Amino acid sequence: MGKISPLAPKAGFPELNSIDGVRFSSACAGVKYKNRLDVMLAEICDNSSIAGVFTKSATRSAAVIDCQKKLLSVKSSSGPFAIVVNSGNSNAFTGKQGHNAVSEICSKFAQELDIPEKNVFSASTGVIGEHLDWKKIGAISKELVVGLSPRGLDKAAKAIMTTDTFAKGSSEEFAIDNKTIKISGIAKGSGMIAPDMATMLVYIFTDVGISPSQLQKIVSDLNEKTFNSITVDGDTSTSDSLMVVATGKSGCVINDQNPKQLQQFKQALLRIMRDLAHQVVKDGEGASKFIEVNVSGAPSFSSARKVAKSIANSPLVKTAIAGEDPNWGRIIMAIGKSGAKVDRDLLRVSFGNLLVAENGWVSPSYSEEKAAKYMQNDEILIQVDLGLGSFKSVFWTCDFTQEYISINADYRS
Amino acid sequence: MGKISPLAPKAGFPELNSIDGVRFSSACAGVKYKNRLDVMLAEICDNSSIAGVFTKSATRSAAVIDCQKKLLSVKSSSGPFAIVVNSGNSNAFTGKQGHNAVSEICSKFAQELDIPEKNVFSASTGVIGEHLDWKKIGAISKELVVGLSPRGLDKAAKAIMTTDTFAKGSSEEFAIDNKTIKISGIAKGSGMIAPDMATMLVYIFTDVGISPSQLQKIVSDLNEKTFNSITVDGDTSTSDSLMVVATGKSGCVINDQNPKQLQQFKQALLRIMRDLAHQVVKDGEGASKFIEVNVSGAPSFSSARKVAKSIANSPLVKTAIAGEDPNWGRIIMAIGKSGAKVDRDLLRVSFGNLLVAENGWVSPSYSEEKAAKYMQNDEILIQVDLGLGSFKSVFWTCDFTQEYISINADYRS
Repeated sequence: MGKISPLAPKAGFPELNSIDGVRFSSACAGVKYKNRLDVMLAEICDNSSIAGVFTKSATRSAAVIDCQKKLLSVKSSSGPFAIVVNSGNSNAFTGKQGHNAVSEICSKFAQELDIPEKNVFSASTGVIGEHLDWKKIGAISKELVVGLSPRGLDKAAKAIMTTDTFAKGSSEEFAIDNKTIKISGIAKGSGMIAPDMATMLVYIFTDVGISPSQLQKIVSDLNEKTFNSITVDGDTSTSDSLMVVATGKSGCVINDQNPKQLQQFKQALLRIMRDLAHQVVKDGEGASKFIEVNVSGAPSFSSARKVAKSIANSPLVKTAIAGEDPNWGRIIMAIGKSGAKVDRDLLRVSFGNLLVAENGWVSPSYSEEKAAKYMQNDEILIQVDLGLGSFKSVFWTCDFTQEYISINADYRS
Repeated sequence: MGKISPLAPKAGFPELNSIDGVRFSSACAGVKYKNRLDVMLAEICDNSSIAGVFTKSATRSAAVIDCQKKLLSVKSSSGPFAIVVNSGNSNAFTGKQGHNAVSEICSKFAQELDIPEKNVFSASTGVIGEHLDWKKIGAISKELVVGLSPRGLDKAAKAIMTTDTFAKGSSEEFAIDNKTIKISGIAKGSGMIAPDMATMLVYIFTDVGISPSQLQKIVSDLNEKTFNSITVDGDTSTSDSLMVVATGKSGCVINDQNPKQLQQFKQALLRIMRDLAHQVVKDGEGASKFIEVNVSGAPSFSSARKVAKSIANSPLVKTAIAGEDPNWGRIIMAIGKSGAKVDRDLLRVSFGNLLVAENGWVSPSYSEEKAAKYMQNDEILIQVDLGLGSFKSVFWTCDFTQEYISINADYRS
């Protein structure tokens, strides 16, 4: 998997708070590679809530289809639940055998944990179209159950990696009404990253109490502002899954009756989700720069989003940034092709705080030298004000380097 | 501009038929580079028809805006016309000065050729956002007019190149009712190539007689099947222009009264346009493979087109092909993300004649070894049958190599 992304968090993998009511375990099943962690198991206590968002791909994996079906029947806090995830094989486009593999895996862990099979969720990530040998995963089910520990989330973050160059985790501890709340999450994702949606695997655990419907509403909403607002290559995975689990063990119950608490929880979950989404971009295949595209002044949210996404997905913008070239004409091109309503003479484009273009042309204050210097930063901010309204959208992406091509020209072999 | 694309026509630049009623000239204005042809002039005789299709970009160039305006007033065969094209600077996003440059250039050539300014069309291609020094172009107007020759189209093909590695031309001669008809065209384009639309500069000349409205209808229709069905990088240019000129000098008049002749002409023009469109893809920046994506069995044309475009634009599909890896799972991914209605179990995917996937999984007859061998070809055919209807769409693209990144990480500097 080569060297670690230069954009990986300098502090390394964070310390993750344990979440009361959840235990984790990881092991080596040899799904694709020998001697590396490739399966994680999460065991979730009774009276928990679970919510999820999944890829909209028409060729999504058997596990995604299974999770979506099972979530529909979760009406109130229940459990116990389990989540089983393997890397090395996505079990997508594997026909009836694919569905069979999911069912075999879920029933095996249901049996080992003595919980209903409908409460076991699974995910698979890796190569598309190859048979997933579920027996390999079944063979380590006992080992995984025996190994369950409240502190196993950091190892789980490693077990779900594919082309990732670093494990991704994020954690918070904060108080609501003198009760301590914890949230901890992990993610994987590096290529095949684009809305919609989650474009990766993400598992987040918290000890608040909340109804599944309320949790689902919050997660779907925050997903739009985080995992659905990032792109590495514009390609959308067949396995994308985001699941959020709330155990209620903190004793703090979040609901509509107390909007202030609800807001506090939502803000904390937003920070965790945004942090994980940023880490995925920072591990974008071949990435050497982290790019924020900030669009304002749009006549509608969808218009702001079209422009932000068009810039964030443009190979020409992203190769220019890789070359540290302040080639702002390509940003103009990407705005122009977005399909959004644009008035050339009202546009304002900036790199960081350097105003580049206004009044339909380069700004008189623009200095190519200063812009070239700015492009040497690891993190690049592109700001676009359409001057047509008050709607905003933010997208995050990375640059497009030769390394991306190397990784993807022979990833599978 | 480095070495010539390995996909360039083996026979080299074709011999172009002269078109009675049109003369060409090219010269070095030094717009960006010294000592290379960078301006072409076409002089078109009286009683001609002219039609055009242009980029839909919201930030399109001053020349494009000017051509669109002028074409609106061409109601019947008229002329004489002139077309002036420079490379090295796109005159896009250059504010009021950009419009002024277009007007100065057009009025200069109108004066030199003694024709109305509204009959002079222009185009510019190259870097975005830099002032176009129209005086440099004006300074060689006399030289260009003196140099006009019926045989100058081949040099014109060179004058309009930017990052192109070879000049692109195509020509036909055929008979309609014992009258000899000729069509000759040139194109430029290599990067920033995607629908919509023409995504390049294309100029085609013929000696049939045809009304401007009839010609426009045919050109708009054929454009969808040719230049609007190719992509190199999914980025859309701000300068894309396709213009077709018919001088009527062959004495053969094409109109609705004779549908057979109309069809003959349309087929010939389609061949020229498709040939030029393919040449643009074959000169795609860094291209080492030419890819045809052939989608059939769709429930609607728009559905077929969505799937074809999604595959043709997918960086993961295109990097796999660069690596000669028959990673068909990425084609499944691209179909899945297209937004088109897809039934996984009805899909059939083939490389050339090798059936890869059917019934929701890899085909029992699929041989990885044969597919790997197939991927070594210069031209790759991806066939997708959605099994849901009878609509079709074809897209052409090239692979995505490290060379694309090299070219674009520092094209401007």
